[in-house]
Amino acid sequence: MSGARTLAAKLIDEHLESGNPVPGEEIALRIDQTLTQDATGTLVMQELEALGIDRAKTRLSAQYVDHNLLQADDKNAEDHAYLRSACRRFGLWFSRAGNGVSHPTHMQRFGVPGSTLAGSDSHTCAAGSLGMLAIGVGGLEVALAIAGQPLYLRMPEIWGVRLTGELPEWVSAKDVVLEMLRRHGVRGGVHRIVEYHGPGLRWLSAMDRHVIANMGAELGATTTVFPADDAVAAFLRAQNREDDFRELAADPGADYDVTDEIDLGTLEPLVARPSSPGDVVPVREAAGTPIDQVVLGSSANPGFRDFAIAASLVHGRRVAGTTSFDVNPTSRQTLVDLTHTGAVTDLLQAGARIHQAGCLGCIGMGQAPAPGRNSLRTFPRNFPGRSGTPDDAVWLCSPETAAASAIEGRLSDPREFARDRGISWQAPAEPDRPAVLDDVVEAPLPPEEAAHAELDKGPNISGLPDFAGLPADLTAPVLLKLGDDVSTDEISPAGARALPLRSNLPKLAEFTLTRVDEDYPRRAGETGDHLLVAGGNYGQGSSREHAAITPRYLGLRAVLAKSFARIHWQNLANFGVLPLEFTDEQDYDDIGSGDVLEFTGLPEQLTAGSEVRVRNTTRDREYRLRHRLSPRQAEAVVAGGRIPQLARSG
Amino acid sequence: MSGARTLAAKLIDEHLESGNPVPGEEIALRIDQTLTQDATGTLVMQELEALGIDRAKTRLSAQYVDHNLLQADDKNAEDHAYLRSACRRFGLWFSRAGNGVSHPTHMQRFGVPGSTLAGSDSHTCAAGSLGMLAIGVGGLEVALAIAGQPLYLRMPEIWGVRLTGELPEWVSAKDVVLEMLRRHGVRGGVHRIVEYHGPGLRWLSAMDRHVIANMGAELGATTTVFPADDAVAAFLRAQNREDDFRELAADPGADYDVTDEIDLGTLEPLVARPSSPGDVVPVREAAGTPIDQVVLGSSANPGFRDFAIAASLVHGRRVAGTTSFDVNPTSRQTLVDLTHTGAVTDLLQAGARIHQAGCLGCIGMGQAPAPGRNSLRTFPRNFPGRSGTPDDAVWLCSPETAAASAIEGRLSDPREFARDRGISWQAPAEPDRPAVLDDVVEAPLPPEEAAHAELDKGPNISGLPDFAGLPADLTAPVLLKLGDDVSTDEISPAGARALPLRSNLPKLAEFTLTRVDEDYPRRAGETGDHLLVAGGNYGQGSSREHAAITPRYLGLRAVLAKSFARIHWQNLANFGVLPLEFTDEQDYDDIGSGDVLEFTGLPEQLTAGSEVRVRNTTRDREYRLRHRLSPRQAEAVVAGGRIPQLARSG
Repeated sequence: MSGARTLAAKLIDEHLESGNPVPGEEIALRIDQTLTQDATGTLVMQELEALGIDRAKTRLSAQYVDHNLLQADDKNAEDHAYLRSACRRFGLWFSRAGNGVSHPTHMQRFGVPGSTLAGSDSHTCAAGSLGMLAIGVGGLEVALAIAGQPLYLRMPEIWGVRLTGELPEWVSAKDVVLEMLRRHGVRGGVHRIVEYHGPGLRWLSAMDRHVIANMGAELGATTTVFPADDAVAAFLRAQNREDDFRELAADPGADYDVTDEIDLGTLEPLVARPSSPGDVVPVREAAGTPIDQVVLGSSANPGFRDFAIAASLVHGRRVAGTTSFDVNPTSRQTLVDLTHTGAVTDLLQAGARIHQAGCLGCIGMGQAPAPGRNSLRTFPRNFPGRSGTPDDAVWLCSPETAAASAIEGRLSDPREFARDRGISWQAPAEPDRPAVLDDVVEAPLPPEEAAHAELDKGPNISGLPDFAGLPADLTAPVLLKLGDDVSTDEISPAGARALPLRSNLPKLAEFTLTRVDEDYPRRAGETGDHLLVAGGNYGQGSSREHAAITPRYLGLRAVLAKSFARIHWQNLANFGVLPLEFTDEQDYDDIGSGDVLEFTGLPEQLTAGSEVRVRNTTRDREYRLRHRLSPRQAEAVVAGGRIPQLARSG
Repeated sequence: MSGARTLAAKLIDEHLESGNPVPGEEIALRIDQTLTQDATGTLVMQELEALGIDRAKTRLSAQYVDHNLLQADDKNAEDHAYLRSACRRFGLWFSRAGNGVSHPTHMQRFGVPGSTLAGSDSHTCAAGSLGMLAIGVGGLEVALAIAGQPLYLRMPEIWGVRLTGELPEWVSAKDVVLEMLRRHGVRGGVHRIVEYHGPGLRWLSAMDRHVIANMGAELGATTTVFPADDAVAAFLRAQNREDDFRELAADPGADYDVTDEIDLGTLEPLVARPSSPGDVVPVREAAGTPIDQVVLGSSANPGFRDFAIAASLVHGRRVAGTTSFDVNPTSRQTLVDLTHTGAVTDLLQAGARIHQAGCLGCIGMGQAPAPGRNSLRTFPRNFPGRSGTPDDAVWLCSPETAAASAIEGRLSDPREFARDRGISWQAPAEPDRPAVLDDVVEAPLPPEEAAHAELDKGPNISGLPDFAGLPADLTAPVLLKLGDDVSTDEISPAGARALPLRSNLPKLAEFTLTRVDEDYPRRAGETGDHLLVAGGNYGQGSSREHAAITPRYLGLRAVLAKSFARIHWQNLANFGVLPLEFTDEQDYDDIGSGDVLEFTGLPEQLTAGSEVRVRNTTRDREYRLRHRLSPRQAEAVVAGGRIPQLARSG
């Protein structure tokens, strides 16, 4: 890359600690900020303990409580107390339950153009809306960043997406990213940074860009970057943080590895059908589908305007009797604005159920729809079963489509709804004096106090498990053969039953892969060392480390896949599971469930090159697989994971 | 009773269908209205199906969705759809999820002075605030009332409580009923109607009286009655329902069976300590206790003023970092008022988590505190484990005490808090133009449409079980010997795990009495026919029929107790379990767990009189017990319950 530079390249160069930023090469980036949420954060805090950290070395590290908000039993509240105490001990900011979803809250309070952010949540990329380089990673990577270590990743390609034109009425940012998913699917962004540019940007506010950057995760992208321009300056000014602004953009004529263009003026309301964010069609093609539940909210539609426009569509109307209309505010501050401006009243009077600010149904914490009924959500994801209902039918859409459909009780194109009801389009007016809750997140203790702060560990908070290293020679059966696009929701389910067990690994492990095969945990427990075979994009979705730790706990030693999702691949390596890709994808077809595979001299194979050979003793065949581990990572896998590796080295 | 009549006596006389209203005699009352909630309502609707009802014969029957709001899996939403369809089929009003708790919502929309109300919720008595005779009963009683049958009960004593004086600053209605509980405990009201009268009433609004009437359930009272006076007229006027007003009061000098008097001016902030509503002390005696969770809301503090006064105390302040401050609005209409007046903003800015309107933590649906931490709630009940946390420590208090303690992070007397912070007392101003959501509850379909309405039964909605009749001779072991005041929460737990299973009896039965003895369901399942021995006030608390049905499902045939709570006693009889009281309480001490008891000629014994003899074959002793069944009820128990009895009678 030379000459006119992309914004992503500039951000990387500014933070490069080592490596050559050429696609495919491992680079190390200095991390300015970290973000953790409670579902992944309890492990991160235990990792900080295991690493013997004294105080965060980042410029800013913030811990949010936004996932485990239901408190169906005593474990959630216990976690919240532990997380707060760990923040006090280690010098992190702490955002209490009810403050809202990490991503919009972080953007409002802490987002700084030009900074790097590592977050143990796959939607961390949302902060790209402010010109940040924000990357979702496994919790251990965040713990290491907090400890002052750089973040290692393979340099992605940079994908320039030029926006032109202006969005039509009743079409909004969500439809832009759904259009990207319609064109490119859930693997279109793998090993890429999506960088938006072009004249169409001027119609998108910073929060609109959050919508688009957030769902870059659904494209499989490493992250998404927007320039820091007037829209970002206006956003920071409204937060009383104009001093944090810094103008940032790609050089004119910047040279992208890949390019695409969207004329915003040609877009129409879109919907992702059950059960993939990549199965996108125009709303009009599925209009009339009965809808039993509509949910507004999540990091994929967090802005004031997203709720305000929905409120304007339901104002003076009544939600269909068949339909539950759930509203999940996304930050305490935005909820205050929505309350002031009357949007909350409009929603309440229309029949909405307004919940505390947080992720809620988006992570399967409640709001499960009835079996066999359609649920329409402004969320980023609709992986099978993620809603908490087996065989669910979840659709993804914009707030405009959601509101129109809530009133009609069936999937409705908001353009048609507005026309039929005589509603004329108006951009939702932002509040005259938006609320700024600048002390809503609790500040770290000063170092001298922090040093004496005690960790508040309830009876259910355990330590990290101790995993043995990889044997040099390994003979083990394939316990399960999986298809394409298996998500971490299927590997280690979230939801109200499983999430509270995050620190009870034996219990949590009982849920491992049960959405695919109920019997896997029992068989794995009996078998011990075993293997999995998977198709493409294995481990897409949530960044949760539990999806690596619980299979490892049950004896998983290696996954042989056509390809891996980035974060899960890293989590596997971090916890000592060998991730291998087929050189010849046809070998996938050759292996059957139950086949016994044999590896020999693994440490030597991993350090000698990128190829690993394995013999299928059941079929008497040999396959060649590829590992993409750096020498540093190969050593970690052999040691049983990065924590044993660090323990050994120090 | 003669001469000057009590209000309760007048209400009974007006609705008397049969019987002699002398304490202890069975009477039958005509029922004007019914109330059901979703946790008990799914069984009621199945009972309507089993009874072959065509259309409700009451003046008004309303079904509320307020309990199962979390939707941790697919069953809650399925229930809601079933309940709505049953309302459409049978001619009931339907209140959707998020509309609020049944009791305040019913009071706002449907309460009519002088009417009778039967409700399958133990806090149905709250409607006594409007001069109604409102009685919490088991679901089957409500189903029969909907079918036009009278409600049978034993005529209670009438307990006149004269109120004088005026409440001091920062002391409110909740402290009045806590004072009743302090004086009389959780059995003080058993077989009594509490009737408040006297000059002190003029300081209590209709919603204040709701607080006091509601927690009459905690006194064990059959119900509570207030006069319909100016305060009630003002309440109905604010609801645009002045036409429903009718002045009602006791005759001057009315003759009460029992009397008491409270000088409101002498009261101070009170708190019920863990884990009984009857363990009441002044707040000052426990002040300083660390409080990790404060919850505002529930039918025990549902009024606008309850939230508004809390908002005024936290306004401009910040909830303690150690403390979660949860706010459960109690009706959609009240939430709209709180939003308009700015109370919601004050609460949000102070750090509150504002939830959808409903019961939520009060019924153990979420909001479980951390283990070993104190939770302070404005709820009516704090039975052990009801919060969802084993060995919980839940305290009950007024909204004033709750708000002060949320800011301090420890139990605080609101008088002292206000003095220290320089807050001067002001009665919370009611909104100038209170919201009236007069179509918030969906009206019944017209009969011709209703006749063709289809029941929407999802895959998890089963039918009622078929129970065999009582054998004439019964030899069975005592599987468990229980102490005093065992609540229905301990017999059949509510909460996020158990409640969704309400129509999966085999699954739900696995939770039966596990809070007392984890192994009971297994032993009962293996043993079949068996007995329980219990102390006083057996089955206090919630009205849920599941607490009779699931033990019966596991083989329970009779309970031998010192005394029973009224609703549970009726539920046992309704589902074919024989409730027996010791004539000599010392016999309780004589029986051990595991003893085998022998009954002979049960049908003859039950019809011959009120005595039942039983031989303890293990200890070779004989005991005399008392049954209080009317001939009608005895026949039902012998038949295996009221549904088989009705089926048999044609």
